[in-house]
Amino acid sequence: MPADAGRRKVKIGVIGASGYTGADLIRLAACHPHMEISLLAANTHAGKALSDVFPHLGFIQAPPLVKAEDADWSTCDAVFCGLPHGTAQDIIVTLPGSVKIIDMSADFRLKDTGAYAKWYGRQHVAPHLVQDAAYGLTEFYREQIAAARLVACPGCYPTAALLALLPLVSAKLIDASDIIIDAKSGVSGAGRSLKQNILFSEAGEGLSPYSIASHRHAPEIEQEVSAAAGESVVVNFTPHLVPMSRGELVTAYVRLKERHKPGDLAAALGEKYAGAPFVRLAPKGTLPSTQFVRGSNYCMLGVYADRIPGRAIVISAIDNLVKGSAGQAIQNFNLMFDFPESAGLQQLPLFP
Amino acid sequence: MPADAGRRKVKIGVIGASGYTGADLIRLAACHPHMEISLLAANTHAGKALSDVFPHLGFIQAPPLVKAEDADWSTCDAVFCGLPHGTAQDIIVTLPGSVKIIDMSADFRLKDTGAYAKWYGRQHVAPHLVQDAAYGLTEFYREQIAAARLVACPGCYPTAALLALLPLVSAKLIDASDIIIDAKSGVSGAGRSLKQNILFSEAGEGLSPYSIASHRHAPEIEQEVSAAAGESVVVNFTPHLVPMSRGELVTAYVRLKERHKPGDLAAALGEKYAGAPFVRLAPKGTLPSTQFVRGSNYCMLGVYADRIPGRAIVISAIDNLVKGSAGQAIQNFNLMFDFPESAGLQQLPLFP
Amino acid sequence: MPADAGRRKVKIGVIGASGYTGADLIRLAACHPHMEISLLAANTHAGKALSDVFPHLGFIQAPPLVKAEDADWSTCDAVFCGLPHGTAQDIIVTLPGSVKIIDMSADFRLKDTGAYAKWYGRQHVAPHLVQDAAYGLTEFYREQIAAARLVACPGCYPTAALLALLPLVSAKLIDASDIIIDAKSGVSGAGRSLKQNILFSEAGEGLSPYSIASHRHAPEIEQEVSAAAGESVVVNFTPHLVPMSRGELVTAYVRLKERHKPGDLAAALGEKYAGAPFVRLAPKGTLPSTQFVRGSNYCMLGVYADRIPGRAIVISAIDNLVKGSAGQAIQNFNLMFDFPESAGLQQLPLFP
Amino acid sequence: MPADAGRRKVKIGVIGASGYTGADLIRLAACHPHMEISLLAANTHAGKALSDVFPHLGFIQAPPLVKAEDADWSTCDAVFCGLPHGTAQDIIVTLPGSVKIIDMSADFRLKDTGAYAKWYGRQHVAPHLVQDAAYGLTEFYREQIAAARLVACPGCYPTAALLALLPLVSAKLIDASDIIIDAKSGVSGAGRSLKQNILFSEAGEGLSPYSIASHRHAPEIEQEVSAAAGESVVVNFTPHLVPMSRGELVTAYVRLKERHKPGDLAAALGEKYAGAPFVRLAPKGTLPSTQFVRGSNYCMLGVYADRIPGRAIVISAIDNLVKGSAGQAIQNFNLMFDFPESAGLQQLPLFP
Repeated sequence: MPADAGRRKVKIGVIGASGYTGADLIRLAACHPHMEISLLAANTHAGKALSDVFPHLGFIQAPPLVKAEDADWSTCDAVFCGLPHGTAQDIIVTLPGSVKIIDMSADFRLKDTGAYAKWYGRQHVAPHLVQDAAYGLTEFYREQIAAARLVACPGCYPTAALLALLPLVSAKLIDASDIIIDAKSGVSGAGRSLKQNILFSEAGEGLSPYSIASHRHAPEIEQEVSAAAGESVVVNFTPHLVPMSRGELVTAYVRLKERHKPGDLAAALGEKYAGAPFVRLAPKGTLPSTQFVRGSNYCMLGVYADRIPGRAIVISAIDNLVKGSAGQAIQNFNLMFDFPESAGLQQLPLFP
Repeated sequence: MPADAGRRKVKIGVIGASGYTGADLIRLAACHPHMEISLLAANTHAGKALSDVFPHLGFIQAPPLVKAEDADWSTCDAVFCGLPHGTAQDIIVTLPGSVKIIDMSADFRLKDTGAYAKWYGRQHVAPHLVQDAAYGLTEFYREQIAAARLVACPGCYPTAALLALLPLVSAKLIDASDIIIDAKSGVSGAGRSLKQNILFSEAGEGLSPYSIASHRHAPEIEQEVSAAAGESVVVNFTPHLVPMSRGELVTAYVRLKERHKPGDLAAALGEKYAGAPFVRLAPKGTLPSTQFVRGSNYCMLGVYADRIPGRAIVISAIDNLVKGSAGQAIQNFNLMFDFPESAGLQQLPLFP
Repeated sequence: MPADAGRRKVKIGVIGASGYTGADLIRLAACHPHMEISLLAANTHAGKALSDVFPHLGFIQAPPLVKAEDADWSTCDAVFCGLPHGTAQDIIVTLPGSVKIIDMSADFRLKDTGAYAKWYGRQHVAPHLVQDAAYGLTEFYREQIAAARLVACPGCYPTAALLALLPLVSAKLIDASDIIIDAKSGVSGAGRSLKQNILFSEAGEGLSPYSIASHRHAPEIEQEVSAAAGESVVVNFTPHLVPMSRGELVTAYVRLKERHKPGDLAAALGEKYAGAPFVRLAPKGTLPSTQFVRGSNYCMLGVYADRIPGRAIVISAIDNLVKGSAGQAIQNFNLMFDFPESAGLQQLPLFP
Repeated sequence: MPADAGRRKVKIGVIGASGYTGADLIRLAACHPHMEISLLAANTHAGKALSDVFPHLGFIQAPPLVKAEDADWSTCDAVFCGLPHGTAQDIIVTLPGSVKIIDMSADFRLKDTGAYAKWYGRQHVAPHLVQDAAYGLTEFYREQIAAARLVACPGCYPTAALLALLPLVSAKLIDASDIIIDAKSGVSGAGRSLKQNILFSEAGEGLSPYSIASHRHAPEIEQEVSAAAGESVVVNFTPHLVPMSRGELVTAYVRLKERHKPGDLAAALGEKYAGAPFVRLAPKGTLPSTQFVRGSNYCMLGVYADRIPGRAIVISAIDNLVKGSAGQAIQNFNLMFDFPESAGLQQLPLFP
């Protein structure tokens, strides 16, 4: 940390300030010791006050919402982008070169632009930026993130899944061709757009699988697992919608390679995250649960023996909007601007 | 159905009337065309009115709660037992031979009393009754149930899991040694006893795995899968607590045998349940979800291709207190007393 | 009940089958001993199967959805209308004279078409039908309902409020000019249309007042209270949105007239509803709560002394979709077709 | 703020660390710039790690739990007490005189020890401390709090109610004899002790009134309203349990004095809280809702015209565990130790 870090403020802008990831970014930025919120863009709500679209953010002073194309982004040092996939690239490609970009959308996550076109239904407009973008899974790409102009933050599910699986695949402790990822998410993961299945009366008091074998986070998980495995990998990824607003749990079922034991997996995770400020193995007697990380940037992991010999269960719990989105984005920002990795992210989980 | 079935009433008693399964049994019995509630026992609440322990049942006339040992059970034709495991056998062993028994507890489910002793921590007092008991998974044991004096209704998780898996194992469509059962339950599955983890503030807005590799429903599932497979089978069974009162979803991950396709699995399920009144494949465009069966005796199934070649995903949704307990108990009662299988169970799900 | 009531079936149609009130009507109608569902209309979903819009109703045989204007309504004996206010009148005015109509919308509730125009923002197209319509608060208008061709079922809030208040106002036990109605509703009361404030992530884990002093149920309550009081009355009516799908609770704060006591109020309610099948005073030790009536047609009432001398608190709990809408509609249907008032409505509440 | 405030750390202890108020105090204290957690007591859990009783607090270093009587409290500068009423006084009376005490229990709130004995069922053991204690409603007793050794923090309901009402009563804008307080609370307000009515399956998907005209927060509200009115006042106070973990909303129905208008009330509140960091009038277009203050120390107020002439509706929303307990306790701590009033409390609400 440079000598002046204690006082330095970075001017940030947020594109997509009327969505949940934008809102959580603002919530955290408002208490970040090195951020000054200088521009907020939200096209359909341009002209409104932030408190009009998010009353819970009305307790701070914030600039009014503007259209992204009307803003002078060169006044910002960093821009966080919380737009839906497909629309993020269109604005990001126009940002001045002086601005560092932390993108929370899906547009720059897949390195293979052919795969992007297939999964997201459009040709990418900025393939050159894709290649330069760092993948923002902080614990695995710290150096690239610190050096990058553009960081593509992972999806919420990939974050939870990869934190649990990558160290095990890399160390060849588990069979990369037999990974089953049963994932459960709170409803905020579906965003703030109006869809019938996320109405309170539809999603409440019920549990629903969705996007079986077809969710866009699958290729993203496979990209990273394949890289760690050194070969092309296909995984099972099966998401479920849970009647809670926040939280994401991944229960991964894995086959142990050779004579490895579940304890070897736990040891590998413990070693990998020994110095990481936000990823922890659950202590003995505690199972990773979303309640225990709600509202925070923490990830809680656990490894358990399966009843089936030679298999194990790896569990990962995060808050989908924080470690799964806005919190990790800030963690990456901290690296990009040479602040302590946990700056502005030390709020503890909100329980109950 | 005999000629007089239209008017015949069977006198029933309920032991454990102050628990959730007892209450749901009473809820359904009150509208059953062939039941008359004549005795209600609940030891710690003996002397109270039913409406004192369950105000929602106060809209019907019901006998007051008595101690089980004070009741003359010979006045009943059938007794439903909703006691916790371990205590059910002690009272059931004392019931007159003239009384048919539908037990919703775990005491008579495991045929291997050694396994019972290991999993439930006590020697069984009535091993002879265990051997005579029919396992009350209606769709698989109709004849035995119809002929039995004592029916041991399955646990809620085994019901959801076995309805999805047994036809596939029996037909050797899937590999019985590689079955992963990720299960999710509403909180009522934990019963009405006071435990910290099921307080609203603890279980609300959060998702928690529990009893990993150690839940008592695992040996029950394995008993039936082993019988269907013709060999001893160990399964993965991983339950999670979901912030909803009712509902249970099983997401089973299976490996296809030989060159079978997911469509073969769906076909096998469709054939097996063609005449069953309560088990249905989800129509195209609908995924099995607990919302769609809430409060009803229905089970909704679905089969989906996995991204991993040679694997499939089988999903099963039930209401844990109805098809998973009291509803299936009544379904068995109907068989035991020669009434139409769906008598008293035709209420549609409550949605939203 | 006429001699053939035991077997007679009435052909019913439902307009607005893709909304929550329509769905709950179908859910109950499917088990009604005297109903046959012969027509289902839902304009924007015409051509779909019922199970496509409501998977929980896919367990019954049902006619496909059609456009209301394409249907031959003369094949129905009765039509239930679950359309939004303003649109119901347009279709109702076109129905053949042979068809009895039970309208669950707001269009025929206000006798004063000027008030209707003011509160609902359009001129009424069928003022003659308004005058002939019976107000479907069953317990107060049995004779009119039995004789009517068109019954305008009350809103959910008016149902809960009026059942608690009308007997007290009529008997001049309380001061009609000082009635405060604090009302709380589950989210299904807002319907199935897509609005941001009823998304799970917005309405969950939170409590919000809404439409303060401006809710359209206020003039409806005032119409009936005024009639009972014999003078024009204005009431406080303050609704709140509660994070639950179903249920409605009214907490009414009233000033006692003369030297009346809270016990006098309870006695008046007890007397009024002595023979009513669905309205009950909560037994001693139980407070009216929405859990205790969920999914049922019951209303639970209670009267309590206030700490402020001369005042009392009257509480009313219903399920907004059943007694507050579809259930009461069927109760009225039963009267209109001379069936027992509780036919098809005897399902007990679903708890937990 | 003294010159060294920027670095000064105060050693704090927490008694009752295994309850929800204790936990929320620790959550906030861990990020407070001037607090060092040096002692944690929780008698029934003595010997355990904090993470054993609250896994969400396991991400920080914290001292192990000890028995209150085994601790050397003289090592603390300040002690927060989160014990249940009745037990707090027993330990508080033993604390060394050098220790400042912020009590979140009910034991020192009522100045009239006779009233205390009546409402809480025991004689007070430390009436001298009662007289010296400051009532910790920060916005009204700043000077007394700053000077006090013992501060009795208000109950959650009194906090929400009094912030809305006291300025109006003091200014004689409303009739103190006609105040109706309809209050709604999340379930965490009932604490962490095991009670049937706060099980998830009992409190979920339902709304229940409770403790009508008999809740212990009524005399506390009356004490303060009476003081503001200059005469003895009785209020209506009717609490309801809402299916959410956190949050509290008070809807107060008041009669305007003389010819005052609702706008006069809003103006009085605006003026009173002009400089207060945590109490705000909702902006135009926003109604106070618990979602908008969840997890934060903010209180959101609103004033609305009633349909009944001469009446108004005043609404107040807080988080019951923060502004209603631990947050206000820290706000008082800041005053007692001469830190900025908002130190450690600037986290924004968690929404969604």
